[in-house]
Amino acid sequence: MDFQSYFPMWNQLTREQQAQLSGSAFQRSVPKGTVLHNGSADCTGLFLLVTGQLRAYMLSPEGREITLYRLFPMDICLFSASCIMRSIQFEVIIEAEKDTSMWVIPSEVYKQVMTQSAPLANYTNEIMASRFSEVMWLIEQILWKSLDKRLAGFLLEEAALEDTPSLKITHEHIANHLGSAREVVTRMLRYFQSENLVHLTRGTVEIVDSGRLSQIAQE
Amino acid sequence: MDFQSYFPMWNQLTREQQAQLSGSAFQRSVPKGTVLHNGSADCTGLFLLVTGQLRAYMLSPEGREITLYRLFPMDICLFSASCIMRSIQFEVIIEAEKDTSMWVIPSEVYKQVMTQSAPLANYTNEIMASRFSEVMWLIEQILWKSLDKRLAGFLLEEAALEDTPSLKITHEHIANHLGSAREVVTRMLRYFQSENLVHLTRGTVEIVDSGRLSQIAQE
Repeated sequence: MDFQSYFPMWNQLTREQQAQLSGSAFQRSVPKGTVLHNGSADCTGLFLLVTGQLRAYMLSPEGREITLYRLFPMDICLFSASCIMRSIQFEVIIEAEKDTSMWVIPSEVYKQVMTQSAPLANYTNEIMASRFSEVMWLIEQILWKSLDKRLAGFLLEEAALEDTPSLKITHEHIANHLGSAREVVTRMLRYFQSENLVHLTRGTVEIVDSGRLSQIAQE
Repeated sequence: MDFQSYFPMWNQLTREQQAQLSGSAFQRSVPKGTVLHNGSADCTGLFLLVTGQLRAYMLSPEGREITLYRLFPMDICLFSASCIMRSIQFEVIIEAEKDTSMWVIPSEVYKQVMTQSAPLANYTNEIMASRFSEVMWLIEQILWKSLDKRLAGFLLEEAALEDTPSLKITHEHIANHLGSAREVVTRMLRYFQSENLVHLTRGTVEIVDSGRLSQIAQE
C-alpha cells in the first residue's frame, strides 16, 4: 500500500509538506499483544495501518477494560499522537490485537504540517469525528442495549473478523470487551447455550445459531 | 462580549475571512426550553454563547435521555453545525436550559472559511477534542462510577450552577440527566435523605450536607 494513499488530500499539500511527511515516516512491525500507546504520557506518532489490527480501549481504576474501537488496514490511528492537540484530555490504550505492520509519522512533524495546511487539518478533523462517532455509538450500546444484545452482536462480529464460527476466546476477554464482569458474561453465555445458540467448551465459544443471535443483536 | 474574542486565532485569518465570518453572523435569543438542534437533519450553524446555558443530550429509542455536556457563555457549539463534517455520524439534541442569547454563524460560511484557513480548522479541531474529552469522561462515569457517586456529583453541580442548595427539580429530570430510571433515582434520593444528606419535598431536593455529598462524589 502506497504511503500517500492514506491521505486523500495528498495533492493539496505542497511538495515541501509532502516531503516532510513521507521523509519522516518509518515502518514498524510489532507482534500481537504489543501495547503501542499507553495514555497521554506517550506521544509516539500517527500510525497508518498496513496489515494487522489495533484495539483502542480504556482501563478503569480497578483494571476493567472496555474496547472503544478497532483499527484495520488503511485506518489512521490519531490518539497515539494525542499530544498534537492539547484539548485531548483522556487516556486511551492502544494494543496490537494481531501481528501488525504500520507506517509511523512522528507527532511533531505531523503537527507542524497540520498547523500550516488547511487540507491536512480538515482531514484530521474528519478522522477525529469518525472516532467520536464510534464512541457515541458505544455509549448508546452501553446505556440502552442490554447485555444479551451486546454479547450476541460481539460474538457475530468476532466470528466475522476471524472468519470462523468457533471462537478461541475466554469469558474474561469477552467481559473486558463489553466493560462487564466475567461472571455476568459466563451466566449469559450459559443462557445462550441452554437456548442452543452457542456451544461452550474450554476456551472456545462456538456459534451454533447465527441467525437467532443476529435477531437478538438487532432486537 | 466581542464577536472576535470567541476566536483566539482571529488575527491569523485574512481580512476577507474575518469579514465572511462577522458579516454573516447574526444574533439570536431563545427562551428556556427551546430545542435548537435535533439530530443530523438540522444544520443551523455554529452557536457562540453570549448569555444563558445549553444542554447537549442523546435520546434512546424509548425516549430516555442522557446529558452529554453543557455549554456556557463564551463556549462554541459545534454540533449544531454537524453538517460541516461528514464523519459526524451521531445524533445530538441541543436545548436551551436557560433563556439564552447567542451569535449564529451559518454552517456553509463557517465551512468555507475552515476549508481555506488552517488556523480555523485547527481551532475547530481543538473544540471537537474538548467535547470528545467530556464524552469520554461521561463513559467513565457511566461504566465505573456507581449511581450514588454520580447522583451526589450531579446535585452538587446543579447547586453550584443555580447558586442555591434548594433545587427545584423532579426525580424524572435527574434520571434523564443520569441516563437512569426515575424509580432508581427516587430510591437513591430516599437513601440520601435517610442519611441526612438531602431533604426531599414535593418538587424540591434540598442539599443538607454538601460536605458528605462531596465525599461520596469523590470516593
